[in-house]
Amino acid sequence: MAPDEVPGKRGHTTGDFALSETQLANRNSGQPLEMLRHALTPVGLHYLLIHFDIPYVESAEAWRLDVSGLVERPLNLTIADLKALPQRTLRVTLECAGNGRAVSTPRWQSMPWEHGAVGTAEWTGTPLRYVLEKAGVSSKAVEIAFLGADRGFDSNVEHDYGRSLVPAQAMHEDVLLVWAMNGMPLAPQHGFPLRLVVPGWYGMASVKWLNRIEVLDCKFDGYQQVRTYIFRKDADDPGIPVTRMRVKSLMVPPGIPHWFGRARVVDAGPVTLTGRAWSGGGVGISKVEVGIDGQWQAATLDERAGPYAWTGWRTTWNATPGEHELMCRATDQDGNTQPLEQAWDYAGFGNNAVHRMAVTVRARS
Amino acid sequence: MAPDEVPGKRGHTTGDFALSETQLANRNSGQPLEMLRHALTPVGLHYLLIHFDIPYVESAEAWRLDVSGLVERPLNLTIADLKALPQRTLRVTLECAGNGRAVSTPRWQSMPWEHGAVGTAEWTGTPLRYVLEKAGVSSKAVEIAFLGADRGFDSNVEHDYGRSLVPAQAMHEDVLLVWAMNGMPLAPQHGFPLRLVVPGWYGMASVKWLNRIEVLDCKFDGYQQVRTYIFRKDADDPGIPVTRMRVKSLMVPPGIPHWFGRARVVDAGPVTLTGRAWSGGGVGISKVEVGIDGQWQAATLDERAGPYAWTGWRTTWNATPGEHELMCRATDQDGNTQPLEQAWDYAGFGNNAVHRMAVTVRARS
Repeated sequence: MAPDEVPGKRGHTTGDFALSETQLANRNSGQPLEMLRHALTPVGLHYLLIHFDIPYVESAEAWRLDVSGLVERPLNLTIADLKALPQRTLRVTLECAGNGRAVSTPRWQSMPWEHGAVGTAEWTGTPLRYVLEKAGVSSKAVEIAFLGADRGFDSNVEHDYGRSLVPAQAMHEDVLLVWAMNGMPLAPQHGFPLRLVVPGWYGMASVKWLNRIEVLDCKFDGYQQVRTYIFRKDADDPGIPVTRMRVKSLMVPPGIPHWFGRARVVDAGPVTLTGRAWSGGGVGISKVEVGIDGQWQAATLDERAGPYAWTGWRTTWNATPGEHELMCRATDQDGNTQPLEQAWDYAGFGNNAVHRMAVTVRARS
Repeated sequence: MAPDEVPGKRGHTTGDFALSETQLANRNSGQPLEMLRHALTPVGLHYLLIHFDIPYVESAEAWRLDVSGLVERPLNLTIADLKALPQRTLRVTLECAGNGRAVSTPRWQSMPWEHGAVGTAEWTGTPLRYVLEKAGVSSKAVEIAFLGADRGFDSNVEHDYGRSLVPAQAMHEDVLLVWAMNGMPLAPQHGFPLRLVVPGWYGMASVKWLNRIEVLDCKFDGYQQVRTYIFRKDADDPGIPVTRMRVKSLMVPPGIPHWFGRARVVDAGPVTLTGRAWSGGGVGISKVEVGIDGQWQAATLDERAGPYAWTGWRTTWNATPGEHELMCRATDQDGNTQPLEQAWDYAGFGNNAVHRMAVTVRARS
């Protein structure tokens, strides 16, 4: 098969979007930014990035979580077994590592996210560590792999979706084996009946439809671990794995939109600008600034609902007729601030450049 | 303002997709076709076509439905008032009139739906007729307009989303004022706290965030009624309004996908092909045929769950190694059959051409 006939082949591009990209935007869905008004993303609006098909699982009864490899006691657990362990509920903001890819130049051909691939939910499950302790992880374990029931090809490599953590990461009490979202059983598209949730990391670590945990004596070499989700300058760069979310903020678009092009029209006068800001690894937000035509003003921060949830922010803008550019910029408690321009990344990961929005202000009639 | 500076201006195009189209595909979401396995579309996967912003409604308590115009008794109803009326639950398949637009050539620039803009839900509400009878519609009424809280611009015309029905249509006992979907309160994106559902019609008639009903002595001239949702040959054609859904069927893609390009790989041997078929106006499906490399075979039909719900179908294909083209084609009880090729429509409405899918069959290892 000639290289240009490899199914799923892709590269960098600029300008308009291929049908293959638009197909992915049909399947995968982001949060419309006006829904950032909700501290908890409404059911069905949490972003979805699904590499292959959503598995069809008729009932949770038959599901098994297999734990094997370097363990003293291999396990084969039902969802009921897991529910018998201590439970926790955590409010977690998850963002797709590719969020913002559509607005990068040149752009890696993949899911063309504009801004909406972020959401916040309350996840209920049992800390993974209880299961690992039950199995007895060997001291020789190097990595622990998490594999889902979703299978397909990327760059012509067939694989089950899988990711890994090192034992110290996996034993963190906030890494959960999850069966409920916002108090309801997981929906099929969110991993029914079981998924991993790794708070503070980009979404790729939170493996859905989880049915196997393998404790390895070496690094996991799965496609989704070693071939993608890596910050790289170019194709030959060994790069740095994508892990924790970068500091970021987004704004609820003020005023009303045009259907096509989404241009915004705002009535003159005092306008409350609001949005949400977050960072990774459980680090809080220390500051959000709003830029009005390049002039920065501090926003007021809401209280955060837990260490992994985004922080709401608001400020007032006295809008005057004419064309304006709005921006928002967050700084986290470790001192990281969003850049004004996106840093180059080969596959468009980790775009946390400030959110910019053009608005037209009209005089009130 | 010069014409080419009109915000939201658009036209016909071919080939790749503009950022404005991809933005709409980020906001609006279709059903991944593998979810056609579910008779009732899982919560959060029902398609969404939202012209403007999703209104933020904190609670249903303050919501009012205003009924005015040519009525004996103008009304201002709470959701509680509506819930005191007789209730019905109907299972209804809704499809966006623009479904399939992305694969038409040339293509009108709008939401670039591939195939997934269809879903089935159980809607609970009260027949609209009870409210109209309570108000006392004048015999001079020509049309009844339904207006939502969502406001914006299309082709630079500012308007609240609105649609109309003639009185005979509006008085049909299956046209519902709906507050619940699949037994839960409406989600924000589905019209919380109140929407119209017009079974058997394309989705544009089912106005979300409904807060006003106006009984008119003339035809409703709202943008969404007279400027779009019209089958037209060209820009000057007065055309025919889009109303009932056309007969159509879709197939669950067999095998496993490639992430990018979504090419399908199937293992050789007997493969169960399944999907769903539907038509408009409460008309049932009489036949579904599956085409394997141009050879048609009859599929077995499931029983339909009510007059407005899609019909499941299945057949067995003995897949042999190589490249194959699969198709499905439905015929409704009025004798309408899906065309092999899409009929031309100016804005890409009503595409019900047979669903075609290329698959690669590999020998079982």
